[in-house]
Amino acid sequence: MRDVTGVTSVKRSHISHSFFCQVAEPVLTSQLKPHQEKPNFIIKTPKGTRDLSPQQVLVREKILDLVVSCFKRHGAKGLDTPAFELKDFDIAGQFDPMIPDAECLKIICEILNGLQLGDFHIKVSDRRIMDGMFAVCGVPESKFRAIGSSIDKLDKMSWKEVRHEMVAKKGLAPEVADRIGEYVQCHGGVSLVEQMFQDPRLTQSKQALEGLGDLKLLFEYLTSFGIAEKVSFDLSLARGLDYYTGVIYEAVLLQTPAQARDEPLNVGSVAAGGRYDGLVGMFDPKGHKVPCVGLSIGVERIFYIVEQRMKTSGEKVRTTETQVFVATPQKNFLLERMKLITELWDAGIKAEMLCKNNPKLLTQLHYCENMGIPLVVIIGEQELKEGIIKLRSVASREEVAIKRENLVVEIQKRLSES
Amino acid sequence: MRDVTGVTSVKRSHISHSFFCQVAEPVLTSQLKPHQEKPNFIIKTPKGTRDLSPQQVLVREKILDLVVSCFKRHGAKGLDTPAFELKDFDIAGQFDPMIPDAECLKIICEILNGLQLGDFHIKVSDRRIMDGMFAVCGVPESKFRAIGSSIDKLDKMSWKEVRHEMVAKKGLAPEVADRIGEYVQCHGGVSLVEQMFQDPRLTQSKQALEGLGDLKLLFEYLTSFGIAEKVSFDLSLARGLDYYTGVIYEAVLLQTPAQARDEPLNVGSVAAGGRYDGLVGMFDPKGHKVPCVGLSIGVERIFYIVEQRMKTSGEKVRTTETQVFVATPQKNFLLERMKLITELWDAGIKAEMLCKNNPKLLTQLHYCENMGIPLVVIIGEQELKEGIIKLRSVASREEVAIKRENLVVEIQKRLSES
Repeated sequence: MRDVTGVTSVKRSHISHSFFCQVAEPVLTSQLKPHQEKPNFIIKTPKGTRDLSPQQVLVREKILDLVVSCFKRHGAKGLDTPAFELKDFDIAGQFDPMIPDAECLKIICEILNGLQLGDFHIKVSDRRIMDGMFAVCGVPESKFRAIGSSIDKLDKMSWKEVRHEMVAKKGLAPEVADRIGEYVQCHGGVSLVEQMFQDPRLTQSKQALEGLGDLKLLFEYLTSFGIAEKVSFDLSLARGLDYYTGVIYEAVLLQTPAQARDEPLNVGSVAAGGRYDGLVGMFDPKGHKVPCVGLSIGVERIFYIVEQRMKTSGEKVRTTETQVFVATPQKNFLLERMKLITELWDAGIKAEMLCKNNPKLLTQLHYCENMGIPLVVIIGEQELKEGIIKLRSVASREEVAIKRENLVVEIQKRLSES
Repeated sequence: MRDVTGVTSVKRSHISHSFFCQVAEPVLTSQLKPHQEKPNFIIKTPKGTRDLSPQQVLVREKILDLVVSCFKRHGAKGLDTPAFELKDFDIAGQFDPMIPDAECLKIICEILNGLQLGDFHIKVSDRRIMDGMFAVCGVPESKFRAIGSSIDKLDKMSWKEVRHEMVAKKGLAPEVADRIGEYVQCHGGVSLVEQMFQDPRLTQSKQALEGLGDLKLLFEYLTSFGIAEKVSFDLSLARGLDYYTGVIYEAVLLQTPAQARDEPLNVGSVAAGGRYDGLVGMFDPKGHKVPCVGLSIGVERIFYIVEQRMKTSGEKVRTTETQVFVATPQKNFLLERMKLITELWDAGIKAEMLCKNNPKLLTQLHYCENMGIPLVVIIGEQELKEGIIKLRSVASREEVAIKRENLVVEIQKRLSES
């Protein structure tokens, strides 16, 4: 499940583990569309998609580029159908625990830092700790998932409300609910993991101990990756327990009180993931368990946040990447503009000119200002005769004369400096 | 109709014309897929899609990147639904003829040159010349499209066969077919355009004269863009006559006799386009005619050609972009490798290491050779004590010692040189 953008990409890096990176789906829903057979594609809008302005498309493209380039920085491999990669393929026991899991958390940090969405933190827990906690607190196994889904609401509801739901609606004994309450209100760093290792009740569960052991190792690795302070062990994290089998994590954006007043966004989870060894194993032809860790980036939510912030700040985004505009003050200079712009295109420079025979110079300069094009090359009779061109900075309005043969080098120099 | 990659992108550059660039659809069919709601996306393969190996995905990605970056070099604007852009929007008469059309041909040349598919040429003609020719040759108007579709087969069938089809199956008078035959077997450069201007029969058609006038202007612009020798006027070009209204064009790959023997590919059209002012006008709420030129790149066919050539040549493609591998000869050095790789990631360098506690050095070096990773950073006890690391070139197997604090700069230098 990946498209040509690398939006959903998969990594089976190294010989030792399988490692999936996935961008959360909503963006794909609205972006990917069936094709039409004939060029009337231009008008037909497939159902269920939405119109995006060029600005919106550009914002999305920039966000996705950042996500994909981070995946590639970590050795991600493009793969159309991950299932394909898993055929004839047995990696059980070949990887060492928690190393790829820690890398997933590092990737999430790099992406959220890169997107400059503001401060964030990542909650981690483990399916085995959650199940172990339920068991030692006295939750009947048949109610594990129902109680898990109540606990998952703790980011939106108070403990009192969640407790009420568990007892009144889901029939949990009040004393069991209170025991759970002692745990799920805890969050902290590696010291909380250590503390739980001393907990006489929780340590009765073998699987909780396994989970705690892995979390301790995870925190050690997070320290080496320099991101331990971004991560907290949070026993209320209960997402995806239907398919995750080990470590789970979820990144949330933090808002300053001022931000919360100015932009009353429902800032929630923007990235999440975990280990799901069992799930993939179910589909393995030989029934092997295939260890997998995965992460999702909530791209649609991130789009929304970025767009809201841009609305608030009035910030504009360029809709093209054009670097240079070719202008003339002269009439009947179209062919000369064409020759000049060909030199730029052939040197890989993004360049435009007006498709008119005799545009006014003011019109051309206004176009550059409107479109945010940084440089203008101006050519006229005089310049042509002297073998020079004028290079104009749109921002400063400064013009310098440059030898025609040095133009490409000079433009490349200016672009690389900016 | 565009997706997040900018695969299908639209340009309404300048104030003066509307300009569509579109990648032909087949690639989208097989690449774009509906999303699934839940993370079992990994296994489910939507119907009608096909499994691609990481190598295939990478080849596709590189080809699409080249196409998209060419569109952007020409000021392309991302747009989700081109229809959106055309709302409130009247550009009739605001552009000067043939300038955007010439730019489309320039874009096709840049893309096909960039893809290094071998020599190619572009056939151009004009719907108005085709219709005018039919009229003056005596084709009844009701048979225009049927005869056009016969002529479109001239790249696969001989004139004799096409003539037979027109006369025996489509009921065209033999003398009318013969008159058509005189035209559709002609192809040449701007001199053929001039020659047709002197043709006593064809010049009886006002619309053929209009088309010839535009082609003459087009060739003038193509000369300024430096691509006139790639383009030939070809009266047998009859593609897309249902929707194109003016200039039409089609790029075909040329094969040397040796190539044709070694790779018996059906090398046909790899890019095409034309002007379709009327089509879009039909959908304009006020019924205005909106001038549009468009081009399609036959990405799926190009994929196929590149893949076939790679099979023949045995050439391999790297499936990751990893630049540096972090290795150690030492046991219990995982945390040091993690700290080192974090420095690389944080500097934007694409880096990997094995996710094992104690991998063998030979295993690590083999991994780099297999994956085509060019550089290895080696760290051990001794290096750690001295504050250095060893930087190894995988190809030459040369190793140099470098101060730890200079590592990132040294790697960036080497990568920029390679």
